[in-house]
Amino acid sequence: KKFTNVMSSVCVCVFRLYILYNHWALKVLLYFFILVSLCLAIFEEPAVWPLPVWATMLVEVLCLLIFTIRLVHYAKVIPRDKFWKDPKNICIIVILMLTLVDMIIYGAMKSANYYGVRWSRVLRPLLLVNVTEGRQLRRAFRSIRNALPQIFYVFLLFMFSILIFSLMALKLLGKRGLKNIDGSPYFTSYLEIIFELYVLVTTANSPDIMMPAYNASFIFAAFFILYILINTYIFMSVFLAVVYNNYKKYLKEEIRQLVRAKRHKMVRAFAVLQEPREEGGEPVVTRATWNQVVQLVQPNLSNAHRELLWSVSDDKNQGAIGKVAFVQLADLLNIEVITLKSRPHPLQWLCPTLYQSAPSRLLCRMVQHRAFVIVYDLIILVNAVFIGLDEENPMIANSEWVFLALYILEILLKLYVFEPRDFFSKHSFWNWFDTIVVIAALIATIINSAMKTSKDFSSQQILDIVFILRVLRLVRVVDSIKRFRTIINTLIRIGPAILTFGQLILVVYYIFAMVGMELFKGKVTFYGQSSTDPAKAYCGNPLLNGTDFAKLNYCKNNFNNVVSSFILLVELTVVNQCSGFVTVTHISARIFFVLFHIIVVIVILNIFVAFVLEAFFVEYSVDKSDLQTSLERKIEELELAVAQEKLEDNLVNAMETIDNDLGTSQSAKPNLPSLMFKIASKRYRTVDALLQRIFESDLDPEDFAENDDPEAQSSGNFANPIFGST
Amino acid sequence: KKFTNVMSSVCVCVFRLYILYNHWALKVLLYFFILVSLCLAIFEEPAVWPLPVWATMLVEVLCLLIFTIRLVHYAKVIPRDKFWKDPKNICIIVILMLTLVDMIIYGAMKSANYYGVRWSRVLRPLLLVNVTEGRQLRRAFRSIRNALPQIFYVFLLFMFSILIFSLMALKLLGKRGLKNIDGSPYFTSYLEIIFELYVLVTTANSPDIMMPAYNASFIFAAFFILYILINTYIFMSVFLAVVYNNYKKYLKEEIRQLVRAKRHKMVRAFAVLQEPREEGGEPVVTRATWNQVVQLVQPNLSNAHRELLWSVSDDKNQGAIGKVAFVQLADLLNIEVITLKSRPHPLQWLCPTLYQSAPSRLLCRMVQHRAFVIVYDLIILVNAVFIGLDEENPMIANSEWVFLALYILEILLKLYVFEPRDFFSKHSFWNWFDTIVVIAALIATIINSAMKTSKDFSSQQILDIVFILRVLRLVRVVDSIKRFRTIINTLIRIGPAILTFGQLILVVYYIFAMVGMELFKGKVTFYGQSSTDPAKAYCGNPLLNGTDFAKLNYCKNNFNNVVSSFILLVELTVVNQCSGFVTVTHISARIFFVLFHIIVVIVILNIFVAFVLEAFFVEYSVDKSDLQTSLERKIEELELAVAQEKLEDNLVNAMETIDNDLGTSQSAKPNLPSLMFKIASKRYRTVDALLQRIFESDLDPEDFAENDDPEAQSSGNFANPIFGST
Repeated sequence: KKFTNVMSSVCVCVFRLYILYNHWALKVLLYFFILVSLCLAIFEEPAVWPLPVWATMLVEVLCLLIFTIRLVHYAKVIPRDKFWKDPKNICIIVILMLTLVDMIIYGAMKSANYYGVRWSRVLRPLLLVNVTEGRQLRRAFRSIRNALPQIFYVFLLFMFSILIFSLMALKLLGKRGLKNIDGSPYFTSYLEIIFELYVLVTTANSPDIMMPAYNASFIFAAFFILYILINTYIFMSVFLAVVYNNYKKYLKEEIRQLVRAKRHKMVRAFAVLQEPREEGGEPVVTRATWNQVVQLVQPNLSNAHRELLWSVSDDKNQGAIGKVAFVQLADLLNIEVITLKSRPHPLQWLCPTLYQSAPSRLLCRMVQHRAFVIVYDLIILVNAVFIGLDEENPMIANSEWVFLALYILEILLKLYVFEPRDFFSKHSFWNWFDTIVVIAALIATIINSAMKTSKDFSSQQILDIVFILRVLRLVRVVDSIKRFRTIINTLIRIGPAILTFGQLILVVYYIFAMVGMELFKGKVTFYGQSSTDPAKAYCGNPLLNGTDFAKLNYCKNNFNNVVSSFILLVELTVVNQCSGFVTVTHISARIFFVLFHIIVVIVILNIFVAFVLEAFFVEYSVDKSDLQTSLERKIEELELAVAQEKLEDNLVNAMETIDNDLGTSQSAKPNLPSLMFKIASKRYRTVDALLQRIFESDLDPEDFAENDDPEAQSSGNFANPIFGST
Repeated sequence: KKFTNVMSSVCVCVFRLYILYNHWALKVLLYFFILVSLCLAIFEEPAVWPLPVWATMLVEVLCLLIFTIRLVHYAKVIPRDKFWKDPKNICIIVILMLTLVDMIIYGAMKSANYYGVRWSRVLRPLLLVNVTEGRQLRRAFRSIRNALPQIFYVFLLFMFSILIFSLMALKLLGKRGLKNIDGSPYFTSYLEIIFELYVLVTTANSPDIMMPAYNASFIFAAFFILYILINTYIFMSVFLAVVYNNYKKYLKEEIRQLVRAKRHKMVRAFAVLQEPREEGGEPVVTRATWNQVVQLVQPNLSNAHRELLWSVSDDKNQGAIGKVAFVQLADLLNIEVITLKSRPHPLQWLCPTLYQSAPSRLLCRMVQHRAFVIVYDLIILVNAVFIGLDEENPMIANSEWVFLALYILEILLKLYVFEPRDFFSKHSFWNWFDTIVVIAALIATIINSAMKTSKDFSSQQILDIVFILRVLRLVRVVDSIKRFRTIINTLIRIGPAILTFGQLILVVYYIFAMVGMELFKGKVTFYGQSSTDPAKAYCGNPLLNGTDFAKLNYCKNNFNNVVSSFILLVELTVVNQCSGFVTVTHISARIFFVLFHIIVVIVILNIFVAFVLEAFFVEYSVDKSDLQTSLERKIEELELAVAQEKLEDNLVNAMETIDNDLGTSQSAKPNLPSLMFKIASKRYRTVDALLQRIFESDLDPEDFAENDDPEAQSSGNFANPIFGST
């Protein structure tokens, strides 16, 4: 009742608009159009598949329109002053304006047959950062920006060290008349030495650069070894340390402010919902109001789960909860509780006598037995050997059908024994993996052999897919070994966070690809395998004649379209070699490659490493949060816990120990309740929740941010109010 | 009195032997002979400078004799059962025996003109690990050994991933008839693919290996990118995480046991030294006894410093301390306290009127002024430009004398203003650096110009030294920038710990160099620059004709003697390329190189990175230990503290802020005491102390290990008793 009063007190219209704004379909639509605008690079000059300019322009205008509508929608739902104070909105407006201006100029230039550059294309990925939903990405960018001063000082020192070493190299080696392998003078130009020594840090030119000096004397090797020790090993470790430390520090601060803002909003919600308790006690929220709130926030939460949460909040069973317990709600909803329903198998419903018969029960026991897993692991190993053998042999080719049959039998047997809905539950990663791979392999193999027998023609694509699926099946064996499972699970768990880095690297790659395409497009040409053009020997550019770039057949490493640019940028991330592009353009092209190395390898990859390290350390220090402990205690009190020894019994085919309870409930004692809970201590609904867990020990649980901290307010954003925070 | 009773109660003879055993000269002698035995590899076949077999054998016998004597000496000073229980002694005995056996066999083979292998040479570096003084190194090895199981499981998973990817590559790419750049079939042999993909993880063959597939189709690039993402980036980060985590965990445990053992010994010492207090109170140690102990342990501690420590221990001024305070003594002695004596300048003694005159005082103020530093920084920058210019120009060559004069003037001015003993105090790293570099440059320049003018002959070696010293002078500019100073100081501070890793890597390199020399010696020959031998084009081995190895002129990268082996191993650490050696021997030679990569890059380098990270994190989280705080508080109470604002004034030329107080005491108020203290909060006397500080937050300060914990006993070793522990 009270809650509905609150509802009517806010403008219902704005609220509906807000709900609409946060609707998943609109978000998907937005990301779809961002993707479309990014993909336009495939069709624009220099294109993979060229389209006329008017076509790409038209699509781009459509995208801009969608972004504008979305922005206007956002402006409607939040207060005007907040909208204009938020830098991300300003950013979007500027990007949209600039893009429009650029399109008009470019269109005019094109129609007048002048040469035009679509410079606004570098702005496109910035939309990904500035849309309301790009919170994770913005946070990553912010923490990089904050870490920059520290990184900058270490970088200066690092550059100073390179300069000093270069000067020494110039003085020691420049006058000795040494020659490079191609006969050019060795170490005579200062700028050249600085660049070469910088590349040595990336290990790309490792023994080559020191060979002429080393050939002249043993002693010069000491110079290079000292250089590598200081700059490659010590400075690179220091970079990692600085990036790691700063990243952690600022991320912690951001998370702290986010938690404060969340708690502050919960406190405000409490103030709205509270009811005074008799005899002037602390105000409370009653169970009925609480239920309404939870139902509104998470409509698909089961009743039993909600009851459980309430019993944790209302520990003393008073029918109402105080402020502290209410504020916990957001964190409580973030704890992933696995609900295990011990449903009877559908076959038991259909023909109970058959399913309960002795042979059937024997089958169930067999499938659940450890030996079943071992037998199938052996089958997988034999299969691996067969895949390795020559598949031209008809015996081997036919054996594939046997293996497919065996895998399908395994899945059918498991479906016979385990309840299908449990078998395909949300967290049963390996069950899903198995089934999809096997079924896909079955379909692909049938298509392949049908094509082969009918028309004596086999499609290479289909065959490739068959091969990949066959090999993928072997991955399953990893899950049987417990030690491997823990490592894999950690990797799967940090997956979502790695996706944030994927976006981050996408933004940086996209910008570099756009700039690189303007700078280097058409300078290097790749001639197909069958081409007999004499220009093939030097990648279509006479400047490359006789260079390593052409000799090593790197012609396809070029900036001629967006796809090959991206692949080249990945290669540059691994090993930074740019000699070819410097040859075809100008020596200053090196700046582009050095800048790329600094941004991607020194900054972003180090943050990636820092995140993996941090995630593994959290995994290794396995202590549950207080809230998780109390939730677990409550589950145990209510005797709804999944018995631990039962879990250990049966480690067949689930992603985590917990998921293994499927089916064993049939043999369980009948007095067990039909619904059981277990908390997934290490799985979190959102990346935010994972981050909050990582920095939990540094957060003050009693910090309710009652005072309206302006700083916390400005950083917490409107898209993350009470209803969105869980 | 009591203390002398204790002394007489232990066997004086053993004690003297023990003191002798721990004498620094004997330790230096031992390390010298270990170095000699390691350096024998330079003279033994395959030698840099060949010596007859009998000569090296004789030296080796001498070394063995020294090691045996040292071991017997050790056996005399510790209880017999402890000696035989200690694995390091057994190790030394086994090494000595095996070496002797090997030498006899080798000698016999040689005299009978058979081919013999000196296999015991790989054992030599193990002596470095097993001598009593190699505690740090042993600990590093132990923590690696303990971390191995965890690393092993990740490694298995990593190898599994490589195997799966290789199988997929074989199936996808093997049948397409693609060709490598040299025309050989691409990806047709499974073992070949596994090796190539392993090398791809080290990034050594980065774009080359994917080019044939990429040239065939865009899509295959995705396969390689996925591979690089998973194996190069994610798995390598996981390796770092696992190594880091385990290393930290076991090191922490070791340090914990060491601290326990130390405290246990302090408690035992307390039990011996204690005197019962009146009225049945807790037993105490009196000030006289305490003084005797401290004087015995650290004879060169100043009286004032000892007084200070006592006043910290005896906080309530009772004239005696209890057990807790006594046990603290060891940690208290580990805190580095900088004693600042405000001595008057010697010139003030000699001619006070002149030194106190107005011009002299003006000069002092000028030198201490900030502008003085800036002027000299500018001079250094100008000097850098001059060095960069062509020194053939006589104007430039003569300018060198001007700069040298300026630098010498700077040192003289500073010596005029600051008290010389303070200027050259132990921690004034930059003062020492400056003076040595300038004086050495002066001497070298004089010799050089003398040779030039007298005989029209200039020695290239002298000239090289002059150049290096000139450039080294420029490094000084770093110290003027505060931000740089903190980074540099951290690096200097972790220097001793890096030396431990230096020893570790020396041991591993030496073993690999010995094995590598036996496997690959003489396979590749380096012909001098001026040689016209046609074999020069293929490094003297026809098998290498036309290979990249010969083309890139890598002939000097060989295992023909111990020095070039070491240089080659450094190169292999940076980039693992071994194709040349596989060509000249056998495909199984790859095992040697892969093993080297696993041990050095995956395990040892990651531990190195882990240590640098940890040291920087400790630097960043600047909180002093409790003991340091109480010591500092006591210093402040006694009004002996160096005033902070005075420190900030004058940041001229000291390694740490604190060292800057030199000389300013002249202008200080006369009522200040002539002796002042400051604790160097981040400097530690020993690596142990640094490690203890790193893990301090996890050590229980109240854990006195009163019960004789057998485990702690076994790990704490005899060389680290009370008297050695501080």
